[in-house]
Amino acid sequence: MGESADNTRAKPSEAIAVDESGKPLSLIAMLFGPDRRGLVARVAGWIYDRGGNVLHADQHRDAEENVFFQRVEWTQPGELADLRNAAQAFSEMAREKLGMNCRVAISSDQPKVGALVSKIPNCLQDVAYRWKRHELPGKLVCVISNHQDLSQFCQSVALPFHHVESTKEKKPASEQAMLRILQEYKLDLLVLARYMQILSPDFLGTIGIPVINVHHSFLPAFPGSRPYHQAYARGVKVIGATAHYVTAELDSGPIIAQDVARITHRHTVSDLIRRGQDLERSVFAQAIRSHLENRVLVYNNKTVVFD
Amino acid sequence: MGESADNTRAKPSEAIAVDESGKPLSLIAMLFGPDRRGLVARVAGWIYDRGGNVLHADQHRDAEENVFFQRVEWTQPGELADLRNAAQAFSEMAREKLGMNCRVAISSDQPKVGALVSKIPNCLQDVAYRWKRHELPGKLVCVISNHQDLSQFCQSVALPFHHVESTKEKKPASEQAMLRILQEYKLDLLVLARYMQILSPDFLGTIGIPVINVHHSFLPAFPGSRPYHQAYARGVKVIGATAHYVTAELDSGPIIAQDVARITHRHTVSDLIRRGQDLERSVFAQAIRSHLENRVLVYNNKTVVFD
Amino acid sequence: MGESADNTRAKPSEAIAVDESGKPLSLIAMLFGPDRRGLVARVAGWIYDRGGNVLHADQHRDAEENVFFQRVEWTQPGELADLRNAAQAFSEMAREKLGMNCRVAISSDQPKVGALVSKIPNCLQDVAYRWKRHELPGKLVCVISNHQDLSQFCQSVALPFHHVESTKEKKPASEQAMLRILQEYKLDLLVLARYMQILSPDFLGTIGIPVINVHHSFLPAFPGSRPYHQAYARGVKVIGATAHYVTAELDSGPIIAQDVARITHRHTVSDLIRRGQDLERSVFAQAIRSHLENRVLVYNNKTVVFD
Amino acid sequence: MGESADNTRAKPSEAIAVDESGKPLSLIAMLFGPDRRGLVARVAGWIYDRGGNVLHADQHRDAEENVFFQRVEWTQPGELADLRNAAQAFSEMAREKLGMNCRVAISSDQPKVGALVSKIPNCLQDVAYRWKRHELPGKLVCVISNHQDLSQFCQSVALPFHHVESTKEKKPASEQAMLRILQEYKLDLLVLARYMQILSPDFLGTIGIPVINVHHSFLPAFPGSRPYHQAYARGVKVIGATAHYVTAELDSGPIIAQDVARITHRHTVSDLIRRGQDLERSVFAQAIRSHLENRVLVYNNKTVVFD
Repeated sequence: MGESADNTRAKPSEAIAVDESGKPLSLIAMLFGPDRRGLVARVAGWIYDRGGNVLHADQHRDAEENVFFQRVEWTQPGELADLRNAAQAFSEMAREKLGMNCRVAISSDQPKVGALVSKIPNCLQDVAYRWKRHELPGKLVCVISNHQDLSQFCQSVALPFHHVESTKEKKPASEQAMLRILQEYKLDLLVLARYMQILSPDFLGTIGIPVINVHHSFLPAFPGSRPYHQAYARGVKVIGATAHYVTAELDSGPIIAQDVARITHRHTVSDLIRRGQDLERSVFAQAIRSHLENRVLVYNNKTVVFD
Repeated sequence: MGESADNTRAKPSEAIAVDESGKPLSLIAMLFGPDRRGLVARVAGWIYDRGGNVLHADQHRDAEENVFFQRVEWTQPGELADLRNAAQAFSEMAREKLGMNCRVAISSDQPKVGALVSKIPNCLQDVAYRWKRHELPGKLVCVISNHQDLSQFCQSVALPFHHVESTKEKKPASEQAMLRILQEYKLDLLVLARYMQILSPDFLGTIGIPVINVHHSFLPAFPGSRPYHQAYARGVKVIGATAHYVTAELDSGPIIAQDVARITHRHTVSDLIRRGQDLERSVFAQAIRSHLENRVLVYNNKTVVFD
Repeated sequence: MGESADNTRAKPSEAIAVDESGKPLSLIAMLFGPDRRGLVARVAGWIYDRGGNVLHADQHRDAEENVFFQRVEWTQPGELADLRNAAQAFSEMAREKLGMNCRVAISSDQPKVGALVSKIPNCLQDVAYRWKRHELPGKLVCVISNHQDLSQFCQSVALPFHHVESTKEKKPASEQAMLRILQEYKLDLLVLARYMQILSPDFLGTIGIPVINVHHSFLPAFPGSRPYHQAYARGVKVIGATAHYVTAELDSGPIIAQDVARITHRHTVSDLIRRGQDLERSVFAQAIRSHLENRVLVYNNKTVVFD
Repeated sequence: MGESADNTRAKPSEAIAVDESGKPLSLIAMLFGPDRRGLVARVAGWIYDRGGNVLHADQHRDAEENVFFQRVEWTQPGELADLRNAAQAFSEMAREKLGMNCRVAISSDQPKVGALVSKIPNCLQDVAYRWKRHELPGKLVCVISNHQDLSQFCQSVALPFHHVESTKEKKPASEQAMLRILQEYKLDLLVLARYMQILSPDFLGTIGIPVINVHHSFLPAFPGSRPYHQAYARGVKVIGATAHYVTAELDSGPIIAQDVARITHRHTVSDLIRRGQDLERSVFAQAIRSHLENRVLVYNNKTVVFD
């Protein structure tokens, strides 16, 4: 196994570093690429050779496309700086020796998240309190809105709030303003907590970080606006919500999480909205969690979500 | 209450007739029409005046359309023939005095059901055994198929099986042949247990009885053929099945029942098919039951399903 | 129908009063008692005679116990004071003429709710924001806790917070103190938002209003404390949450709402806790809503929940 | 990696054998035991060294108990006989070198299943047709019943049916008779398709193969008999079904699969029975499938079910 000539190899005598809460630091690698014989052995061998101990490993193979996916989490001896080196060495090995796409995170990383909202408070309030209760990893560091409605809420939970007016004519300027704010915060993720504007391909092309949206229907049913009204008119017996990565094509990005609830003829449109909001909240939080825990891989406009 | 001049009025001294199993016979009325003050009182009063006793009553009001719906089930003294008279009198009262659409069934009625199938055995086998176990009301009296595959199964459960070849060129002739068979059996309901042909508007216009289909997706997502393949390609996290009345517009008739199941990236198309078949079976049986128990009203291409 | 000699009868010429938002005021009656012929007709007739219009009516009959249940909602002409009179007249008629238990509410009533909490913020934060977003009827007017942990949250949402220490020795005195506070607020409902103490039979006997608790298991499985630990140890594949009325017998009161989620061997106890909290929140809110919308009737330690 | 001195090592030049349908034969190993560093690497390395290709690998680590679980499926060059040798060599390596419990199956194995039934046809009919439709692996080879009721059904689907009378006094003799029949068929699995007798510890100690039962409640709620009646009396809003391995302690064996459905006050006991039977069928089939696909590991009276 010649790939181990790097300097990150096997120091089992050293101690394993811990985070602030005393939990051992771990490395989490997410890989995917063309399947070939020996991938599992190569990855496991690399870790073993460095004194590492696999905590979790999950593989998936898309037999039709012949693509291999892996999420592997391990501890290994050394300080945080050693782990950063190991993360880089692993990535290089995966890319160069295994021909895999790869990214590696360290469990103590605290990704920074920003939220875009309009007027509807439901999803923002829910995730803001989940973060306060430490139910979600990372941290929510700013909120941008095209309305003032949620400014008071943000103040009550000490969340920086930025109002950026957005009208049809001003859209490019608004998006520029938003981008400037987002970049100042050095975000790792942007979430749309019921943001009622369509982001331009330019914005999405520039932002450089993943964007997660929650849509209030079980996509691909009822895309676009007013899905609860559409569901009511069609007389469906099930409503849903979908969290997905945002792509240039509206409501068509890779789906991360979906949930549904049964309804009957007794439910009015406002009942659907109220019941649907419970789904939106839980699906949105679940997608954010899966993303921040490094459990989501995207390919072919679909996701592999390791649980 | 001047409408009670008819001869069906109040004979509380008489006994209540029973069916073969000793269960009291009941009348079940299904009404709908423009809402107006006093409908509930008029219906309840009519029944009370004839010595009747309401067993179940369920109302619904579509506030947007101002339409009133009711399902009411009651016993009243008299023999079966008296109940048939009462059913007719009630219908006339509902139509003439209340301006309502109305149909009235008697609990001992045994509606006759026919099934169209192609090759897939799943739904036919399931409902055939449900009827054998008396889990469904009415009875399944015949099966028609454009293939021979299910003939042996039908024989094993003593179900008359008719093969009617159906090719593109012969479609009108095939449908004529099918109609003749269906009419001989004097069916009350036709069910499509995974029938893989599209019925022509002509056929549907002529048949004169409701037709229930099961579609293997959570409509309106993935209409048409190969929905599991569509679902797999889109990367949804939920699959479903839908039972609906058949209308001339493909996969767009009023939805009676829907169910869904969660899936993950691990599920192949054949896993989706296998898991979906459980949904198809239960949704199909549930829709047939609701229909045969006189619980379904249709308006505006939607259903009211009283449970 | 001799019962209509009262002065609340038929003034259809008058206008129907509206609430602050312009919605017509309605009366909501909840009845139950021994079933007998003509109940539906008598209730509907009484309303009709007073110029009323039934908006919703829902009946249930427990065939084994021969008990009849009804929820009926109607508008009728007159001012709020007239409706209060009508409510009283209806109750008397129901009790005296029909032999039914009965209570009647008016749609503009705003029941006052208090919450008991300990340290866990999850359910309190959720319902507090639901009330702020007007997702729940009535209003939350005070919070009492045996700990200080949630005082700051209450302050941030302008909710009066009362700390009442509660140790084993001081329990009677603590409960007395709590009762005094609750009575000052003239509450209509007390909700236990993860309150980790057992209320004494004395307290429950004195309080004089319904008490709703949320328990973090699908009762009757895993009653008592640490149900997620019990569920983990037993290896179940489903966890749940239950909202129920509190009775003197621990975790055994009438169940109002339950929900469940699937789990796998991968979920640790802390995963169960986190996932379960989503269930707790939605089940708790749903039970409070059903109660405050006058949809719940209790008999034989079970509930009828009209939806 | 000195463990590879055996003669099963690396013949990548040979072809991979296929089963009757042309699908490549694979080996499936199920391991569990004390966790230690390097397990994943050792297993993957062993397979790689023999020219194998991992198709699926799934790990689990119980952090509390420090137990490691793995299911790994791979192809490797050679004929069926070579694969049998490889299976044995792998087992020995896992036991001796890794200190793991281990069993290895080959994908073309067709485990033989027997069913015990009483009078209720529901589950037997469902699985019999699932096997006929090739929805389940292995094959159902015999049915034993303490009643004659299902003999005709078995005949209609060409399933050998054995009637073994079982009264309280005769129980030991009956169980002996059953054991003799089961042993003649050389079964790999026994399933109780609503068998209404309790099997004695003696029987369970002697039979030597796993036994799967389906119980009609969401255990541990409502163990014992008449769970639907218990559920109705308690007023729960959810019913369920549970498939579990049978142990000497009634209804307390390791749970393999559970499912639930919502109910309301409208559902009578017979509605619960009917709805529950849908759950029983799907949970029973799912547990049998998971077991026969070698996805279930048992420890501490719980299961790890790899999906």
